[in-house]
Amino acid sequence: MTDIWVNEGLYPAWGQRFRVVHELARVRSPFQDIMVFESETHGRVMLLDGVVQITEADEFVYQEMIVHVPMLAHGDASRVLIIGAGDGGVLRRVLQHRGVTQAVMVEIDGEVIRLAREFLPAIGGAAWEDPRAEVIVGDGIDYVQRAPDASVDVVIVDSTDPIGVGEVLFTDDFYAHCARVLTPHGVLVNQCGVPFMQAEELRETSLRRARFFAEVSAYVAAVPTYVGGFMTLGWSAKAAGMRALPVEVLRERAAAAGVLGTTRYWSPEMQASAFVLPPYIQDQLSV
Amino acid sequence: MTDIWVNEGLYPAWGQRFRVVHELARVRSPFQDIMVFESETHGRVMLLDGVVQITEADEFVYQEMIVHVPMLAHGDASRVLIIGAGDGGVLRRVLQHRGVTQAVMVEIDGEVIRLAREFLPAIGGAAWEDPRAEVIVGDGIDYVQRAPDASVDVVIVDSTDPIGVGEVLFTDDFYAHCARVLTPHGVLVNQCGVPFMQAEELRETSLRRARFFAEVSAYVAAVPTYVGGFMTLGWSAKAAGMRALPVEVLRERAAAAGVLGTTRYWSPEMQASAFVLPPYIQDQLSV
Repeated sequence: MTDIWVNEGLYPAWGQRFRVVHELARVRSPFQDIMVFESETHGRVMLLDGVVQITEADEFVYQEMIVHVPMLAHGDASRVLIIGAGDGGVLRRVLQHRGVTQAVMVEIDGEVIRLAREFLPAIGGAAWEDPRAEVIVGDGIDYVQRAPDASVDVVIVDSTDPIGVGEVLFTDDFYAHCARVLTPHGVLVNQCGVPFMQAEELRETSLRRARFFAEVSAYVAAVPTYVGGFMTLGWSAKAAGMRALPVEVLRERAAAAGVLGTTRYWSPEMQASAFVLPPYIQDQLSV
Repeated sequence: MTDIWVNEGLYPAWGQRFRVVHELARVRSPFQDIMVFESETHGRVMLLDGVVQITEADEFVYQEMIVHVPMLAHGDASRVLIIGAGDGGVLRRVLQHRGVTQAVMVEIDGEVIRLAREFLPAIGGAAWEDPRAEVIVGDGIDYVQRAPDASVDVVIVDSTDPIGVGEVLFTDDFYAHCARVLTPHGVLVNQCGVPFMQAEELRETSLRRARFFAEVSAYVAAVPTYVGGFMTLGWSAKAAGMRALPVEVLRERAAAAGVLGTTRYWSPEMQASAFVLPPYIQDQLSV
């Protein structure tokens, strides 16, 4: 048997590698190189331009934290906008929440959706067929530019890092429109990279978002295959104070939403403690 | 220029790799293979039997959490026993605490100490020359078997995983003697691996420690180069309730100890939130 390894190319001189059981797809879309393979250790893995986006084994960490934290901090979110997240995992977690009446997902690369539905069907599960879901293949910035004022309760940006196709999702223009389309208690969450390796990503997006939101912060999640210690999720709220909720309130809301007991990383206590940042990360928010 | 990479061998089908600037040492000691190299991304790196033990860039995360958490939870520790930790990083952090009168470090492999002092001098720093430090090259299990009852306030076990030379540090005999040599408010902390990849390590050691300690738990740290999400540190206390301290008390104790403001990962708030475990880790403690 030949030993085939995939080396992640996110950082030029350090990274993770997976032994490949077999390759499932390798596609050059109009936007990026997409690869899906079966790994020995983490189930199926999808890479975009050589960077790990999702593995079956650890996707629960990232999805639970990018979805349940803003949804439960808001407490009454019915209309949710998802940018990116073509694998369907965010959509599935959003639709777990009973109060959601509409989840619009805007993914620029239809090939990501097609390959995820074919090779990672459990990630999105029944969400693809949910009548509350609207899946749009299109540009996230175009969508928010045209969306009506105060029409969305929560925006979740599950983008790649700010290089290539994801770059526009880290601009002032994008954040300004997110703030405009959000309701007065609206929340935006966006992925901000791994500060130990990509400190400038968190610093930059935090400074930009602070121009348009009353409360800007970040919270952390230890995602096994986003290597380099904590990854950060950016928190931007139209109203201040929404993130500091008692654990008991989070538990009640999670129970009412139908989420309590379904999670492996998120818990009411984890939501509260995720906003506690180590000094080396906090420093990136204070500049 | 040839491109030389070091692939970590901890897990057979997944792991991290570093691009090597140059190799500094490669020694076969009586106990293990030791390698030190200069990496492009993480400063100098030491591997034992192909497993990353320490890098200059991220050592602060692990050292701060394995040392400051038990020291400040105890609050009045003067005599500290360190098992393993031949690089000197734990010793240095222990001696930061003003109240420490004696820190005994027992490392089985003198070659680890020699190579760390030669190639990673900043890790131990002045700790090697501190009159309060006693560095013993010897077997940790032998040492605790012979140590007097109730003679130590905090035991810190910075071992390799329970394979090879570190295996004896995960046995009932070792834990029983740790409990015996600890004072009535004594605390033992030991490294318990990365549960996402090594769940059985945390489960096993927790069950064993529970036979000898009133309070057994674990806390987490996101160590960039211990890849796989959170790594866990095992908490074992002779008296119950010591770990649930208010943040204000921890801050006062850290200020009095001379530790406050010196850390990049630890903070009073991080100490409190580190005991909040994601369900997938908590499950390993409940069996």
